[in-house]
Amino acid sequence: MYLENDDTICAPATVPGTGAISIIRMSGEKALEIADKVVKYTGHGTASTAKGYTIKFGNIYGTDGSPVDEVLVGIFRAPHSYTGENSVEISCHASKYIVEQIMLLLLQAGARAAEPGEFTRRAFLNGKMDLAQAEAVADLIASQSAGAHRIAFNQMKGGFSSELKSMRSQLLEIVALMELELDFSEEEVEFADRKHLATLLDKVMNHISSLIDSFRLGNAIKNGVPVAIAGATNTGKSTLLNALLGEDRAIVSDIHGTTRDTVEETMNIDGIMFRFIDTAGIRKTSETVEKIGIERTYRKISEADIVLGMTDVSRNEEQIREGLEELLPKIDFTRQDLVILLNKSDLIGSPEMHNKNVLIKNIIVSFLNNQYYTKNEQSNGAHGPDTSQNSGTSENPYDITYGKTRIHLQELSAKKQTGTDELKKYLAATQKNKMSDSDTTLVTNIRHIEALTKTQEALCRVKSGLAAGTPTDLVSQDIREAIYYIGSIVGEISTDEVLGVIFSRFCIGK
Amino acid sequence: MYLENDDTICAPATVPGTGAISIIRMSGEKALEIADKVVKYTGHGTASTAKGYTIKFGNIYGTDGSPVDEVLVGIFRAPHSYTGENSVEISCHASKYIVEQIMLLLLQAGARAAEPGEFTRRAFLNGKMDLAQAEAVADLIASQSAGAHRIAFNQMKGGFSSELKSMRSQLLEIVALMELELDFSEEEVEFADRKHLATLLDKVMNHISSLIDSFRLGNAIKNGVPVAIAGATNTGKSTLLNALLGEDRAIVSDIHGTTRDTVEETMNIDGIMFRFIDTAGIRKTSETVEKIGIERTYRKISEADIVLGMTDVSRNEEQIREGLEELLPKIDFTRQDLVILLNKSDLIGSPEMHNKNVLIKNIIVSFLNNQYYTKNEQSNGAHGPDTSQNSGTSENPYDITYGKTRIHLQELSAKKQTGTDELKKYLAATQKNKMSDSDTTLVTNIRHIEALTKTQEALCRVKSGLAAGTPTDLVSQDIREAIYYIGSIVGEISTDEVLGVIFSRFCIGK
Repeated sequence: MYLENDDTICAPATVPGTGAISIIRMSGEKALEIADKVVKYTGHGTASTAKGYTIKFGNIYGTDGSPVDEVLVGIFRAPHSYTGENSVEISCHASKYIVEQIMLLLLQAGARAAEPGEFTRRAFLNGKMDLAQAEAVADLIASQSAGAHRIAFNQMKGGFSSELKSMRSQLLEIVALMELELDFSEEEVEFADRKHLATLLDKVMNHISSLIDSFRLGNAIKNGVPVAIAGATNTGKSTLLNALLGEDRAIVSDIHGTTRDTVEETMNIDGIMFRFIDTAGIRKTSETVEKIGIERTYRKISEADIVLGMTDVSRNEEQIREGLEELLPKIDFTRQDLVILLNKSDLIGSPEMHNKNVLIKNIIVSFLNNQYYTKNEQSNGAHGPDTSQNSGTSENPYDITYGKTRIHLQELSAKKQTGTDELKKYLAATQKNKMSDSDTTLVTNIRHIEALTKTQEALCRVKSGLAAGTPTDLVSQDIREAIYYIGSIVGEISTDEVLGVIFSRFCIGK
Repeated sequence: MYLENDDTICAPATVPGTGAISIIRMSGEKALEIADKVVKYTGHGTASTAKGYTIKFGNIYGTDGSPVDEVLVGIFRAPHSYTGENSVEISCHASKYIVEQIMLLLLQAGARAAEPGEFTRRAFLNGKMDLAQAEAVADLIASQSAGAHRIAFNQMKGGFSSELKSMRSQLLEIVALMELELDFSEEEVEFADRKHLATLLDKVMNHISSLIDSFRLGNAIKNGVPVAIAGATNTGKSTLLNALLGEDRAIVSDIHGTTRDTVEETMNIDGIMFRFIDTAGIRKTSETVEKIGIERTYRKISEADIVLGMTDVSRNEEQIREGLEELLPKIDFTRQDLVILLNKSDLIGSPEMHNKNVLIKNIIVSFLNNQYYTKNEQSNGAHGPDTSQNSGTSENPYDITYGKTRIHLQELSAKKQTGTDELKKYLAATQKNKMSDSDTTLVTNIRHIEALTKTQEALCRVKSGLAAGTPTDLVSQDIREAIYYIGSIVGEISTDEVLGVIFSRFCIGK
């Protein structure tokens, strides 16, 4: 798709539907003149003669002279507009019919209907923002939580871009030094101290690594922290999901294995978006359909950042042990948080509850001991059980701290809705702790991650090339490739095709 | 519900959802100050110091200092605003999250969330528009066709209101003359010539009559002209509806009596909204469910402005005659248009089609002759058949013109979609003719019709009072009642309750 960039584009900029106000946006060299053809102003002057950042009141008439609407016209003059071009925003009554009529009149007067994202594309092409900032506009609009909003806003304001630019200029410095050598190659001079270059390179590579690592958290904030609800059948997983969401989202029954498909639902807790995943109960089964469900459960557990391990405290020791021993091997304690839920707390008394807490704690600690013994063939201090030190976010004496691993035990009754608020608080606090650890830039865009990964690959080749004494011209070529990829994120290098893909994801009118 | 009118209100004014731009509107004495508390402007000056009809650019931050969005603030100063009060329109990115955050900040800074329609209510209370005009704003937003839009726009611009005001002042003149007599009652003077009064009164009553009569057409334009598709079972009524709409809206099958419920669908043809009503086929049946369907069919036929009488030309004379003789007595030729559709034209040849046209024409003419003979006990010229004169909107030589009654015959094949475009053209042309006849105000609002009807009832009492020589003070009381009702339309007399009902139908932010 080839887009003319010197014509004038127009599109409705507000969500379509019946409401109070709709806005039609127009941008391009002739935006003011076209507005003047369509609008008859009640005061003196026209959009063409008006100053920027002013509003004019007027009427729009159809080609047959019949009135269409009264409108306000906001006037913006290049370069002081969103797109950097002359622009108007026509504010009319929010009726589908009126918006259609005004659009028709603007098209007849010489404007062209804008493609999705074309206003922002022009802002990019006119240097009002770089590509990463433009992409952040779409993320900003889509953001549904404080966290996602903060990431997108920071990126839109150029926070991420300036980091990238700084890395890019460091790489340019390296390549400049190396290419200077090439010019004097006959003299076999080494302008660039190889050790110094390696240090510079390490710095950039560490930075890129941390950006790549930030994707998991960034993505969790943008799309919701994935929380899997797992455990033996009929322990109350679906009831918990309903209790958390406050509605009958998941099907609940007393029949074992009711939840065959996984059910997902997002929920904003204290500004953080969580994505709860109800899973099929884990139990030995011969039923094919349910087997598939259980396999899916294992996959969902592996994709989660937090696993809620459901136990039914009204069951006997053997049943609880069986359920936990099915679940625990599926958890990756190096990156996943585990919370053990002691459900159906309303069915047993306080002394019994104490016993169940101790039972579960012992099962888990012995599992961890065993796991680290067999896996690491050692039991060093870092992984030893440490029950003395309690996590700040919870005051449960049964909580387990095992090296860096922390496992929270939460009593609750999903049915009576007791303990669910405490669970929510714990989840929000834990996640906030994680987020505050990384006050740096969080990458949330797959395109950016791909480019950063390719940058890193090229830099790895540079690094080994330097170590192996590869000829300077070959090494320098890899650095140029890294610079290319890093530049592609902010759009210093971009093709029409790439722009097409990026801006087609925008809505019309943005 | 008691609404404070001296506080400052705010509400999102655009349709909620994810898009390019959302607008939050604020109105009231402190609108500019509150905006200044929430927005940090990048240029110099503030909303409070800025002129009306200007725009300022700024940033909004949350209470914790985190950025919320970049915004444009449109500034309007009393009385030059929609509400007549100080107002701002804050234009932000169209994200649910951002709009919520900005609303929260405005509420914290001293604004109150607006009730539905409260901005327009204030415009009314501040004398920017009368009640009929305010109601037209809601109609304008809801209008989906050129016709409905024209009616609403005319009413919003005060066309209807000025007619009412003129009638009201005429009535006030009458009552003033009469009440002057009361002051001089002891002298038995008759200031007001009774004949002159009666003439004045007739003029107003005629005007009100035509307004009341316009409701049927006005309502048809606003909500769609009701068109019933009727006829014997399995003549292709549902197939026609689908062909007209271009989709599988009605269930179609070969089994007689498939359509038991009535199916409605609106369609915009050439700027006019039509409401097509598919009905159950008419035939003698013993099945209870279907009997109910047929009764409903008769009711739907009586509610339609246009009846499409479906015949299957592939059937024999007796079957066609039976179907028509069931349908024709249900038509009120004084107010309903009948179009006879000769469906399944693809199944017979041209000479046969000629015969069927003639057959149908003869059946109808003979029915009309018979009807007017039995009903009127006479066959005067006005109702005599007049086949020589053809309607301008159709060139079909089989069309029937019988006095003022015109019946169009249209060959078509609903299945092959031939003749359907001609049918659409005929419907649009016929309706346009009707609409151009009444270039006067069309009343579309039930509240207005109720008030006009009550006005007319009071004026009827005045008229008979004058004729019977009823004492002046009693007659004058009835005129005052008429004046009251006519004034209630534009809101010269209004109660909080009435306003509550009217404005609660508006959307938030209008």
